[in-house]
Amino acid sequence: MMAQAAVGLGVPIRLLAEGPDVSAAQVVREAVVGDYRDLETLRRVADGCAAVTFDHEHVPTEHLHALTEEGHPCRPGPAALVHAQDKGVMRARMDRIGVPGPRHRLVTDAADVADFAKTVGGFPVVLKTTRGGYDGKGVWLVDDEAGCAVAFDAATETGAGILAEEKVDFRRELSAIVARSPSGQVAAYPVVESVQRDGICWEVTAPAPDLDESLAREAQLIAMRIAADLDVTGILAVELFETAEPTPGAALGESTGRVLVNELAMRPHNTGHWSMDGAVTGQFENHLRAVLDLPLGSPRARVPWTVMVNILGGPHGRLSEDLYAGYPHVFARDPSLKVHLYGKDVKPGRKVGHVTAYGDDLAEVRERARHAAAWFRGDLGDESE
Amino acid sequence: MMAQAAVGLGVPIRLLAEGPDVSAAQVVREAVVGDYRDLETLRRVADGCAAVTFDHEHVPTEHLHALTEEGHPCRPGPAALVHAQDKGVMRARMDRIGVPGPRHRLVTDAADVADFAKTVGGFPVVLKTTRGGYDGKGVWLVDDEAGCAVAFDAATETGAGILAEEKVDFRRELSAIVARSPSGQVAAYPVVESVQRDGICWEVTAPAPDLDESLAREAQLIAMRIAADLDVTGILAVELFETAEPTPGAALGESTGRVLVNELAMRPHNTGHWSMDGAVTGQFENHLRAVLDLPLGSPRARVPWTVMVNILGGPHGRLSEDLYAGYPHVFARDPSLKVHLYGKDVKPGRKVGHVTAYGDDLAEVRERARHAAAWFRGDLGDESE
Repeated sequence: MMAQAAVGLGVPIRLLAEGPDVSAAQVVREAVVGDYRDLETLRRVADGCAAVTFDHEHVPTEHLHALTEEGHPCRPGPAALVHAQDKGVMRARMDRIGVPGPRHRLVTDAADVADFAKTVGGFPVVLKTTRGGYDGKGVWLVDDEAGCAVAFDAATETGAGILAEEKVDFRRELSAIVARSPSGQVAAYPVVESVQRDGICWEVTAPAPDLDESLAREAQLIAMRIAADLDVTGILAVELFETAEPTPGAALGESTGRVLVNELAMRPHNTGHWSMDGAVTGQFENHLRAVLDLPLGSPRARVPWTVMVNILGGPHGRLSEDLYAGYPHVFARDPSLKVHLYGKDVKPGRKVGHVTAYGDDLAEVRERARHAAAWFRGDLGDESE
Repeated sequence: MMAQAAVGLGVPIRLLAEGPDVSAAQVVREAVVGDYRDLETLRRVADGCAAVTFDHEHVPTEHLHALTEEGHPCRPGPAALVHAQDKGVMRARMDRIGVPGPRHRLVTDAADVADFAKTVGGFPVVLKTTRGGYDGKGVWLVDDEAGCAVAFDAATETGAGILAEEKVDFRRELSAIVARSPSGQVAAYPVVESVQRDGICWEVTAPAPDLDESLAREAQLIAMRIAADLDVTGILAVELFETAEPTPGAALGESTGRVLVNELAMRPHNTGHWSMDGAVTGQFENHLRAVLDLPLGSPRARVPWTVMVNILGGPHGRLSEDLYAGYPHVFARDPSLKVHLYGKDVKPGRKVGHVTAYGDDLAEVRERARHAAAWFRGDLGDESE
């Protein structure tokens, strides 16, 4: 999707791909196949580029420092990116700059977790691997001391730390996305509602329906504050919990405590895919404009409502051989639907594409997007209209 | 631009490119460099593809027949495409199906032209090479018999014929674009106004301002009729003259004679670039959907007004070394502007990109698009705001 935006801007891209046929390598002419953990490979890719940027957070921080010192502008830079790479570092920084979040503690063993649990009203608590988690992997909801073993076993294997967080009783999840350029310009997208299932983003509605205006502004200001304080360049996505009531002890600084930071990502983010079809400037275009230090495009919505639903590989396998077999139905049923398929092999639960519908009526827009995604997933029988 | 749409749909593309660094080859992974006049090369590219399509009309008709006979679905097929390749064939067909056009005759020498001129009120008349012309090349406005030599000299060189046409006293030029699938579905885009300078498309306004509703409908119906009659698949662009008054003798069939067909193109067309940002489904996406026989996307406009202005290489050379140097100004001035640069070397008069602005107020939208294109062209001084 970054490649699409790059074609529009006429900006040449060089890609470091994990394999010759990964999604991005299918659509970029200049793809180097190699290991993003190998500094020599990174140097080879970075050489001659105006900027280096990322579509995941897993490039080792020390390599990014090396590249930066050698004169390759990494955007975001390693000092910013580490907050998206390491949840322990992130939480400590959020506390320091007064951004509200769930209560938390770096923990070393199950007894430590039990001790932490006492300070937040008892189990269940959430354990997270500090590094390397994604899409619900590396996150555990544990009900008692014995339940902690799985997390610590995983941590022993990967060498990552474990962060304990209170389980927040949230109304829903929100996402505040901003683009920020090295010059300091910021474009703040409308705050969206995201629905997760099994830790994976399922559906996003832009803007978040019935969101209190002051809360929307607070969410945007939190994202802007984090972006500026951490010197983020490119897209920053701040995933937030909207709580029903102010959480005592969680509110720091000026915050009312009704939105709490859950996660940070410093790249175009799944909760921003709606913007490709629903905003004046899509997040991928603004990411490129930001990392090239060009003035940012307007992030405003083009329509009252945009709903994006991810296409996940389904359990039924009807379209698992050929996702494209889903096109005739969804296109014929809904000529205004936008579909994005990623050229990935279909596996159950894997994100293989997304659909976007937009319009004036939220219920209708939602139905259109949900129907199409369900069709691709194989969750609808042939009798469905 | 077709590649961008293909990325969105997750449709893999194989490109036949004239050279390794032409515009399209910069953004397609699988590019075969070769000559589109060589049948063996065409076979190699077509092998294994679900459909073969085109971004120009110059592939020899006989090669397309050969490919079709060998089982490669060419869309549009050679029997349709010949009408975009050969203006003589096109005019004869338009007459036969009762589509209005300027009076015309295939001519063999200057005396023949003088004879034709007498039937249309005298010189000046328009001479056109039947094959191979584009962007004003291969078109001559001749004032007398002596002036015809240049056209016939060119025809002798290329082996093409010469078509004489009456010079139409038109109010303005319009374009009616439709997408048509092999199954026969048609999507008709709003009729647009196009402004040409020196035979090159300069500016397009969608929809055509102050266009009589019945005339707009007639233009769309003409395009639909041509698409169906010629069995066009993919995008068909019908360039039209809107005349001030019905032209006696030009009106055929049921037509009022107030729109006359000027040219046909069977591919995404410059007068349809506005649709990428201004319509629900851009013409490149609908072209791909059509040639793959997928249901077509909605062609309706997303906004009241969209204006596209081509970026032509300018005479002043300010940005000729680096077109991207134009980005900071135009993006900072207008955060809602869409810019498309094609990765081409800048030469005076060459189309190297386009800009699109959209909104509710035509005058404002036009000003924004014109300013940006003028800036890229180098036609504005540094003092301009």
